Amino acid sequence: MYYTIRWDETAVSMLDQRMLPVQEVYRHYTNYHDVADAIRSMVVRGAPAIGIAAAMGIALAAIKSKINNINDFKSEMLQVCQIFASTRPTAVNLFWAINRMRNIIEKSEDIDACKNDLVHEAQKIHQEDIEINKKIGEFGQKYIGDGFTVMTYCNAGALATGGYGTALGVIRSAVEHGKKIKVYSCETRPYLQGARITAWELFKDNIDTTLICDNMAGHFMKKSEIQCVIVGADRIAANGDTANKIGTYTMSILAKAHGIPFYVAAPISTLDPDTPDGNSIIIEERNIDEIAYIQGVQIAPEGIFIKNPAFDVTPAANITAIITEKGVIENPAVTGIGPLVNG
Amino acid sequence: MYYTIRWDETAVSMLDQRMLPVQEVYRHYTNYHDVADAIRSMVVRGAPAIGIAAAMGIALAAIKSKINNINDFKSEMLQVCQIFASTRPTAVNLFWAINRMRNIIEKSEDIDACKNDLVHEAQKIHQEDIEINKKIGEFGQKYIGDGFTVMTYCNAGALATGGYGTALGVIRSAVEHGKKIKVYSCETRPYLQGARITAWELFKDNIDTTLICDNMAGHFMKKSEIQCVIVGADRIAANGDTANKIGTYTMSILAKAHGIPFYVAAPISTLDPDTPDGNSIIIEERNIDEIAYIQGVQIAPEGIFIKNPAFDVTPAANITAIITEKGVIENPAVTGIGPLVNG
Repeated sequence: MYYTIRWDETAVSMLDQRMLPVQEVYRHYTNYHDVADAIRSMVVRGAPAIGIAAAMGIALAAIKSKINNINDFKSEMLQVCQIFASTRPTAVNLFWAINRMRNIIEKSEDIDACKNDLVHEAQKIHQEDIEINKKIGEFGQKYIGDGFTVMTYCNAGALATGGYGTALGVIRSAVEHGKKIKVYSCETRPYLQGARITAWELFKDNIDTTLICDNMAGHFMKKSEIQCVIVGADRIAANGDTANKIGTYTMSILAKAHGIPFYVAAPISTLDPDTPDGNSIIIEERNIDEIAYIQGVQIAPEGIFIKNPAFDVTPAANITAIITEKGVIENPAVTGIGPLVNG
Repeated sequence: MYYTIRWDETAVSMLDQRMLPVQEVYRHYTNYHDVADAIRSMVVRGAPAIGIAAAMGIALAAIKSKINNINDFKSEMLQVCQIFASTRPTAVNLFWAINRMRNIIEKSEDIDACKNDLVHEAQKIHQEDIEINKKIGEFGQKYIGDGFTVMTYCNAGALATGGYGTALGVIRSAVEHGKKIKVYSCETRPYLQGARITAWELFKDNIDTTLICDNMAGHFMKKSEIQCVIVGADRIAANGDTANKIGTYTMSILAKAHGIPFYVAAPISTLDPDTPDGNSIIIEERNIDEIAYIQGVQIAPEGIFIKNPAFDVTPAANITAIITEKGVIENPAVTGIGPLVNG
């Protein structure tokens, strides 16, 4: 059985998602700098998963530290937190997980106790995430009718989280409830998370999955082949506007135009009451070679301009419901995230 | 200077578009079967260009024929027409060009005269196509304001036609009229005509072009970075419904949702009064390995279901205007193609 990420006493191990679907290769990092690089270079990706990876990276830095003065240790560890905070800008779960680790560092008065607490907290974040996803799945599966074909985008699956998945957790839960469902997975250019990762993990679970190109979504919606869309999220602003993988906004417009429900599944840690709306969300721009080359093969002429925003913002008005482990916000355009973050 | 296709006395030469943008390789076919294969395997693609290729392939078959009985010759040539008619099903220009050749065959009473006439007709179809594109460009450029950023999809350029292009002909004409314009080229999965071909030919012409992934179109429209969309067509039904490269429909929905004009540029030979509406258009399904592999690199798990429709249908209601060499149909949803085919 595969795993996304694992704490291995003196190392952080993770599946190298860049090698999927052809090779299942695990990396074992014994140095926190390598964990930060793994987040940056998308060995591990997905908002909840990079939160867990950062927490484990900080725990790794702690147990490897040779400093024996508590103040110097705390100062070094806060710098480590800063390094992880700079790896990727859009997913708020990253900052949420780092904050949990930072709170422990700031309160601590003893190096060994602090190291133990950080290791324990990182594992707790991981375990909690899996439990959270199962709750999201349970709340979300009520929206998936028997016989539905569900479209998903990017990968909000076991491999984007500690395990089970958010959007794919809802699909897994529906299957566990005995519903016969089919999945359309959009390939999700440029990084092809839908083709390489979602298709791979659903195929492993024997869930009936059809891969399509992103530009085919409208065509299949028009042919009434899709009954709902479900995606994950990287950050949900106070008004319900949702940052997720580039292309999600396009899918939300298509769903709306065809009268198809559009669901966002995400843990509470993705909700960001400090960000008023989508305009305030920082959108990461990634290297243009991710578009110009596909696994080393050049597909664009040398010297052409390319734009590569990694995320876009879906306005709350295009979202039918936001599904979390604490419950569901229907019509988030009306209430924003208030019903859950204030509750 | 590159060319799409050329009649070379005893051969048909064409740029192998599968090798772009890395290599500029020309193929020289001396056997009509190889020309038919070149159409099937997309060495040459684009509705007007495959019409020209089929016409030249038929001319090639004629001059290579060793038959010296006129009736046997005509019968052989009609079979050749049939072979070309079976290469690809969606683009109506293919059948239009074959019909022009078939009319000559059916009327002919002398083998040598027929051979001459077929060679002449194929070259005429080619020459006329370039002139037609320049007229389309002239009519179309009026819709492109100075300073516009124009989004285009797939390749409706010099390499989809005898030269100059339909949608890209409109862009070229706007540039020739001194307008400063920018182009956003959608990469167009799975065959990547936008990344490999449109970006390549516009870059050669020093037209300011930015490559984006198909799923980014909505994001850039929302940011008001795009003032209009212009695409080609493979078949336009009597009511104005338009078959074009898969994904065009999705772009038309996005344009409509953002209040952005959506233009179709195509020669009259693309208008098909015999097809009442989009539901009657046959949509080619291509090999799923075009999605599972990108130039030999596997991007999808072995055994996963994949769908690969090559075209979709944009309803007339999503089209602001259809631009042809005979004039423009504004609001085709109101009139269908009647104003031009009956005119």
